[in-house]
Amino acid sequence: MKKGYFVTLEGFEGSGKTTLAHKLYHIFLKNGFHALVTKEPGGTSAGDKIRKILLERENEGLGYKAELLLFAASRSENVRINIKPALEKGLIVICDRYFDSTIAYQGFGRGIDMDIIEYLNSIAIEGIIPDLTIFLDVDTEIGLKRATTLSKSTELRFEDEFLQKKEVNGKLFLERVRDGYYQIARQNPDRIKIIDANRDISLILKDIIGLIGTHLSLKYKKEVILNL
Amino acid sequence: MKKGYFVTLEGFEGSGKTTLAHKLYHIFLKNGFHALVTKEPGGTSAGDKIRKILLERENEGLGYKAELLLFAASRSENVRINIKPALEKGLIVICDRYFDSTIAYQGFGRGIDMDIIEYLNSIAIEGIIPDLTIFLDVDTEIGLKRATTLSKSTELRFEDEFLQKKEVNGKLFLERVRDGYYQIARQNPDRIKIIDANRDISLILKDIIGLIGTHLSLKYKKEVILNL
Repeated sequence: MKKGYFVTLEGFEGSGKTTLAHKLYHIFLKNGFHALVTKEPGGTSAGDKIRKILLERENEGLGYKAELLLFAASRSENVRINIKPALEKGLIVICDRYFDSTIAYQGFGRGIDMDIIEYLNSIAIEGIIPDLTIFLDVDTEIGLKRATTLSKSTELRFEDEFLQKKEVNGKLFLERVRDGYYQIARQNPDRIKIIDANRDISLILKDIIGLIGTHLSLKYKKEVILNL
Repeated sequence: MKKGYFVTLEGFEGSGKTTLAHKLYHIFLKNGFHALVTKEPGGTSAGDKIRKILLERENEGLGYKAELLLFAASRSENVRINIKPALEKGLIVICDRYFDSTIAYQGFGRGIDMDIIEYLNSIAIEGIIPDLTIFLDVDTEIGLKRATTLSKSTELRFEDEFLQKKEVNGKLFLERVRDGYYQIARQNPDRIKIIDANRDISLILKDIIGLIGTHLSLKYKKEVILNL
């Protein structure tokens, strides 16, 4: 039984995941909690090197299976080094993307066999499932616009594929990913909450804080109010 | 059915694998065959970046599972980009390490569950099994001496572990790997041949050429003599 509390943020680039992860981290600290913020791919020494292979535009020809295996390698390091030890110490851990990304992007987006994805996720996560997963649902066009403005321009290999407009079963890559997120959310209604991320970030943050406050109140069996 | 012929070289660093792979490649060309020489980890654009993570000494703290997943990622790219297309075109392919390395090093050496290793190998290799595997059996001390003289000094993460003298079940890492190679060879007597690699390289090469000549004679149903 893990003592800490584990929140993951999911969604497209440009949905506000990274900004929100860091805002949440500071809110937890301000409210007296010990917390850790991390991200995938990356978050460790080897993971950051793997992240470069996965996201840099120059690796556009990377095979789907290698991509999947590299995400799993990065995740296994992040769980081993950051997430598991922090949860065991009782910290609140916020992770910017986790295994749902792999199900949505590589499973629904790429069409890789879900059995393979589940197997690799199970190797990487050592049984650690998030207590709460926020799916930040942003319109693909709004997300892409934000992502191309905000992100490092070298780290957009996945967005490039969307812009190439390749369709599978009449749907573009990021449309299949979004359908995937919705399906995962329907299958895990207690864990995954969908938040409208087309709105102003202050409104999104307020919603998330409310959800986490309720969760933590139940966990600690006393009312927890998180001040912004 | 693959049209080409696939040879893999296995064994410790310092067993002569890399030198022999290149010598074999040139002998095939000289004897009128189309051939390709490749290596693992590496051999592709992403694979070379993965190789650096796997072998460089600065990544000494890499987790065993991430290591295994990275080898699989590199292998899947090498199969997809190099090995499979070359064999389909009828080339002779020589690969410096292949899936037996993972069974020996990560399975027998690290003690990772063989079911996981077999599953990851099966994802990576797309059904491509070598026609012939040469296990270059060198004494660990001779191999290490050669490796530390010949190799890039940054690429010795696995050798460093040997030098740290950590024992599992009373055996050092490279001793467990060697036991593993022997066990794999016993289980695959038709495919894997053990060659004494403590000898001069010209004698080793002659043995290998003899084995391959016999194989190719059977494959092409006429006598194939490879001139050095």
